[in-house]
Amino acid sequence: MLRLRDPIRLIPLLFLGFIAVGTAVLSLPFATADGSRAPLLTALFTATSAISVTGLIVEDTPVYWSIFGQTVVMILFQIGGFGIMTAATLFGLIAGRGFGLRDRMATQVERNRLETGDAASVLKLVFKITVFVELVVALILATRFATTYGMGLPEAAWHGLFHSVSAFNNAGFSSFSDSVMGFQTDAIVLGPIMISVILTALGFPVMQDLRRHKLHWRQWSLHTKITVAGTLALLLFGLVATLAMEWSNPDTLGPMGVGAKLLNAAFHSVMPRTAGFNSLDMGSFHDETIMANYFLMFVGGGSAGTAGGIKVTTFFVLFAIVLSEILGRRDAGLFQRRFGRAIERQALSVTVLAASLVFAATIYIASVSSLPLDDILFECISAFSTVGLSTGITAKLPPDALVALCLLMFVGRVGTITVATALALGGRERPYRYPEENPIVG
Amino acid sequence: MLRLRDPIRLIPLLFLGFIAVGTAVLSLPFATADGSRAPLLTALFTATSAISVTGLIVEDTPVYWSIFGQTVVMILFQIGGFGIMTAATLFGLIAGRGFGLRDRMATQVERNRLETGDAASVLKLVFKITVFVELVVALILATRFATTYGMGLPEAAWHGLFHSVSAFNNAGFSSFSDSVMGFQTDAIVLGPIMISVILTALGFPVMQDLRRHKLHWRQWSLHTKITVAGTLALLLFGLVATLAMEWSNPDTLGPMGVGAKLLNAAFHSVMPRTAGFNSLDMGSFHDETIMANYFLMFVGGGSAGTAGGIKVTTFFVLFAIVLSEILGRRDAGLFQRRFGRAIERQALSVTVLAASLVFAATIYIASVSSLPLDDILFECISAFSTVGLSTGITAKLPPDALVALCLLMFVGRVGTITVATALALGGRERPYRYPEENPIVG
Ligand SMILES: [K+]
Ligand SMILES: [K+]
Repeated sequence: MLRLRDPIRLIPLLFLGFIAVGTAVLSLPFATADGSRAPLLTALFTATSAISVTGLIVEDTPVYWSIFGQTVVMILFQIGGFGIMTAATLFGLIAGRGFGLRDRMATQVERNRLETGDAASVLKLVFKITVFVELVVALILATRFATTYGMGLPEAAWHGLFHSVSAFNNAGFSSFSDSVMGFQTDAIVLGPIMISVILTALGFPVMQDLRRHKLHWRQWSLHTKITVAGTLALLLFGLVATLAMEWSNPDTLGPMGVGAKLLNAAFHSVMPRTAGFNSLDMGSFHDETIMANYFLMFVGGGSAGTAGGIKVTTFFVLFAIVLSEILGRRDAGLFQRRFGRAIERQALSVTVLAASLVFAATIYIASVSSLPLDDILFECISAFSTVGLSTGITAKLPPDALVALCLLMFVGRVGTITVATALALGGRERPYRYPEENPIVG
Repeated sequence: MLRLRDPIRLIPLLFLGFIAVGTAVLSLPFATADGSRAPLLTALFTATSAISVTGLIVEDTPVYWSIFGQTVVMILFQIGGFGIMTAATLFGLIAGRGFGLRDRMATQVERNRLETGDAASVLKLVFKITVFVELVVALILATRFATTYGMGLPEAAWHGLFHSVSAFNNAGFSSFSDSVMGFQTDAIVLGPIMISVILTALGFPVMQDLRRHKLHWRQWSLHTKITVAGTLALLLFGLVATLAMEWSNPDTLGPMGVGAKLLNAAFHSVMPRTAGFNSLDMGSFHDETIMANYFLMFVGGGSAGTAGGIKVTTFFVLFAIVLSEILGRRDAGLFQRRFGRAIERQALSVTVLAASLVFAATIYIASVSSLPLDDILFECISAFSTVGLSTGITAKLPPDALVALCLLMFVGRVGTITVATALALGGRERPYRYPEENPIVG
């Protein structure tokens, strides 16, 4: 029963199409600063990174690409961000019913109270939020750049817009060579970027719920409750971990005052969850901080938005299942609701597929390069979770490794289960069930 | 409803008791070769490693410990091995019914057709298998050591017995300083060790099923089918991966002939799954081989035996769930049987707890030492899965890290869920259920 019109096959194809177009445009000679044509792999990697709102780069964005090239990159991550948000939301409306993924989408729709008639209003809302937030943040940043850093108006406006769009779409691309490390002590630059990232990384269903029900906790869907509470918990973990582990590292927080320490630790609790800007030099982080970043990156942000990773809800569903198992309870759940069996399996499948993919890619890249294993693992998690942070090895990777990262960014963005389901051939359900028998596990 | 007589609290306490006794005996002056008293941490680490049949060492076994000390170590891993096998099997018989772990144990009993009346016969069987296999393997090894390596009879008998008991209990301790690297090309030494390890790493329920039903596949329980087929698949993966990745490594397989390459790759496909002997220098493995070893060690061997890790069945239950999710099927299962919800959750909980523990320990050890992160991760997985392989950093670790490894070995041996349940206070089941609501995951 292979149907090519299957909506689930549409999203990966759409993304592939945009990557192809982006690669072609970035291959134009005037896309680069020196007017020479970019090598195919450089164009492909940059387009994939932009469309998937990852932000990993093999060439220094402001140095290598012309203003035209940088504008193309910005448009690509705006499409990748806005596109995914809308597609993911609308996809729930057109998907049929059934088991597995179909159920997931149906559930998503019900829980977030979207009706098919809503499609236009959803699009409108996404568009309004995008324009509003991006303009406000761009204005703040541009003003600051012009008044405090002595930039001319056009230059300040360009950098402000670029970072605002990049932050809103959690893209992590920067029009500065050192990301935002030049603004380490400037809360007026780092602050708006952080707020924009935190908001959009919640995902669209949560943003919609928040708009409808404001801060009335009882009216929130379970999805919103878990995402918001989980986000706060993860941010707190990131803040405390970064502070504790980097407090006296001479290459990161060490030389700063307490205020700047707090600001930068907060910034680096937000960024690994999906956005990928850095105000500190990631390559100088202690190993234990790198490990904490593995975790934050792998979990990622909220579902159905621009964030990557396995998602906050997935992580906390797993957490609740383990807790119920330890406490010997029949039901797993959170906030006085219990989970259905389908959602438990989906959470498990998403996580296992993600871990397997990162693991396989790390083995592969380790076998084609001779870089340190922990840096490779960091790069793979960053690519899969579309974070875009790096310990600095991206440009040193051989072509085979870059292709592997492209694949990770693509699958990470489109979704492991979506890709796997799209690739799976043949019938979905058997007309019979096998008898139950259980092995001993653990 | 905290009950101290709860059988689930008995096993951890039993193990702690043996560790205490082992530490005390190894602290006797004549336990060491030079007659000085071993430092407390050295005695504790060695006793924990032996009782948990791990095999990690901070002091070179044949150099640091006297023959008395080495005999104590051998007795400890015999108790840890035999003890755990028997306790795990018998535990199923005394455990009550209910949800979570209790269900698991009840299931275990049913599936493997054990009755309470069987207890004595189970003990007898374990004892008979142990004595028989250990004596046969000891005899083969001792004969070979005496005839080919020019050892005197007492010396050959000692090394033969030590390695035979160590292999049978998957302990990985060796009475040679370089483990079995001195026998790289000798199939008559490596062969019996491999066979003993493969057999016992299947776990006791499988051994019992094989004894009753021989090779009649249809009569096997689902647990036996998954464990045997899964073990073969993992061994094949280990063999192919080691051959492919180490074939021309000048420090491992490189200089060997094809026969020796095959023998050593086979040996190193068996050992990371639980036993922990090494015929090659692990520290010289390529990064990609180290990654493959992470995987094999983490999965481990069969349930309810001397093997560690999350267990073969756990891994394949997760695999089947992911597969059913991708194919959009209602049921997850293997070999024409479907799994119950309880077993799916247990598999998930075991894996998540294991990964969290290894992750936390790795962060901790990274923060108290300055060794490479990939070596630390290797050490933590090895300790948790009671494998005992090392890239060579064990003796370089600071005291805090060694205590963390002791904890990993203890929890890894006793079982994450067993420990977590034993630690969990308070009532088990609520008298009511919450309504179902599902977040969006992935
Ligand atoms: K990003
Ligand atoms: K072992």
